Amino acid sequence: MTDKIYDLIIIGGGPGGLTAAIYALRAKLDVLLIEKTGIGGQIALSDVVENYPGTAPMSGVELMAKFEEQAKAFGLEPRYGEVGSVKDNGGYRVVDTADGELRARAVIIASGAKPRRLGVPGETEYTGRGVSYCATCDGFFFRNKDVVVVGGGDTAVKEALFLAKIVNKVSLVHRRDSLRAEKIIQEKALNDPKIDFVWDSVVTGIYGDKTVSGVTVRNVKTDASRELAVAGAFVFVGILPNSDFIDCDKDEAGFIRTDDRLRTSIPGVFAVGDVRTTVLRQVATAVGDGATAAYVAGEFIESL
Amino acid sequence: MTDKIYDLIIIGGGPGGLTAAIYALRAKLDVLLIEKTGIGGQIALSDVVENYPGTAPMSGVELMAKFEEQAKAFGLEPRYGEVGSVKDNGGYRVVDTADGELRARAVIIASGAKPRRLGVPGETEYTGRGVSYCATCDGFFFRNKDVVVVGGGDTAVKEALFLAKIVNKVSLVHRRDSLRAEKIIQEKALNDPKIDFVWDSVVTGIYGDKTVSGVTVRNVKTDASRELAVAGAFVFVGILPNSDFIDCDKDEAGFIRTDDRLRTSIPGVFAVGDVRTTVLRQVATAVGDGATAAYVAGEFIESL
Repeated sequence: MTDKIYDLIIIGGGPGGLTAAIYALRAKLDVLLIEKTGIGGQIALSDVVENYPGTAPMSGVELMAKFEEQAKAFGLEPRYGEVGSVKDNGGYRVVDTADGELRARAVIIASGAKPRRLGVPGETEYTGRGVSYCATCDGFFFRNKDVVVVGGGDTAVKEALFLAKIVNKVSLVHRRDSLRAEKIIQEKALNDPKIDFVWDSVVTGIYGDKTVSGVTVRNVKTDASRELAVAGAFVFVGILPNSDFIDCDKDEAGFIRTDDRLRTSIPGVFAVGDVRTTVLRQVATAVGDGATAAYVAGEFIESL
Repeated sequence: MTDKIYDLIIIGGGPGGLTAAIYALRAKLDVLLIEKTGIGGQIALSDVVENYPGTAPMSGVELMAKFEEQAKAFGLEPRYGEVGSVKDNGGYRVVDTADGELRARAVIIASGAKPRRLGVPGETEYTGRGVSYCATCDGFFFRNKDVVVVGGGDTAVKEALFLAKIVNKVSLVHRRDSLRAEKIIQEKALNDPKIDFVWDSVVTGIYGDKTVSGVTVRNVKTDASRELAVAGAFVFVGILPNSDFIDCDKDEAGFIRTDDRLRTSIPGVFAVGDVRTTVLRQVATAVGDGATAAYVAGEFIESL
């Protein structure tokens, strides 16, 4: 489409991508950041972030606005669009978008991850009409109603606590007989009078009329099924990387494998934050990744 | 000294140690943080930090005060003291201090590193006011100005190339008549029109008024001295890790080697930030490390 070759194209405008942008722009690289939907990534869905070091508790939207403002102060002009592929062309990388091909010496993948679905009858049908993957987005629609939360990890329990403040009752359905969440959060949830626990159980179906009116729950030990009358089902059972557009070495779940310099298997292509195989997915870790990848990408560009 | 066994002892109160504390305290671990001199680490010496994502430009002291305040809000009570050794005792780790032995299930080393100084007049006086040990941190403050880079190794030459894209002119002062850096980097630097080389020379003094206005350079072969008018002096003559107190696997420069879960060669002992073998030493990267190590240490403790 154009002969221009950017120094660096960053794919994704969450904490990892914005940090990479801040570092690359301060290093005077010619940077383009492409974001598919809206700046901020998954963290922008969080009601309160209190563990990002150096900032008072605030919403994910507020925190990401600070990141964006800072990147813009160094000259960032984000572009909106979807990336179809990223390929190596020897001297430069080719990023295919709906608006045509873009070229860059280096590419940082910061495309994040998204929630996993249950894959049960009614789930897709009722998404947006009772089924949700984001309590911050949708919790308010269920005020004074009964909801179910599916999952037993950090996210599920945190979101159950969030919902308990809004809704009438939360039933947390978990396939095991104990939670996997952080101790402090577990204790909070176990002591919350508005949260009931449905142990050793899975949701096998979601039903209703125009909107959800209940879910079917099966006990995995007794095999007995029963119905829970709820107006909403909040699903927190894992995450899926946004990595389909790139053909490189990935783990079994599709997260992009990197080395300790955040290099992918494609020369000149780096991966940061939630989309890569990593121990922990936090703003704090995405930020560390973003700084490192921008630095290593700078070295890579210098070596061309 | 006491039979108490902490869950986690964190050695060092810079960004990595304080982040580990925030995460560990939120996970309801029983945490002790030991700091030798003063909370904040090396970044507390920085006049302005503008590349830590999410915060407006502020001094390193101010930024670290925010970290400390946040950690204290979760219950941190830092202790001052110097650690003599860290040893594995099977079920727990033993941290030897001037005040006696302390015990913990897990230990995070966050003791940092410090730049090797030139040891010339004006260096200490102008640190943070023209004298810098980090181009990634401070280069942007010298855009379109003249600077001197001291050193001839990999880091010095890479940082000179990094600075050349930002500043008006780089004079690289090296005590020999050739560089020790990788060939490809050498060639780039030697061909960069914005980099001048001052061979066989050492910086013998740094002078100025409120900020640096020049350095004195002495040719070690002719013994002739001259002055270079520069706004900044970037010194890259080595980094020294604060790792003498621990006997574990280290690289040739004394940095602690870790795996991708930040585990050292001693079970239950982790290392974060500047003290470990890593690509980039920044607040952003120390923060990522601290969050990860606290999480992995929590898993380790849970597994005991």
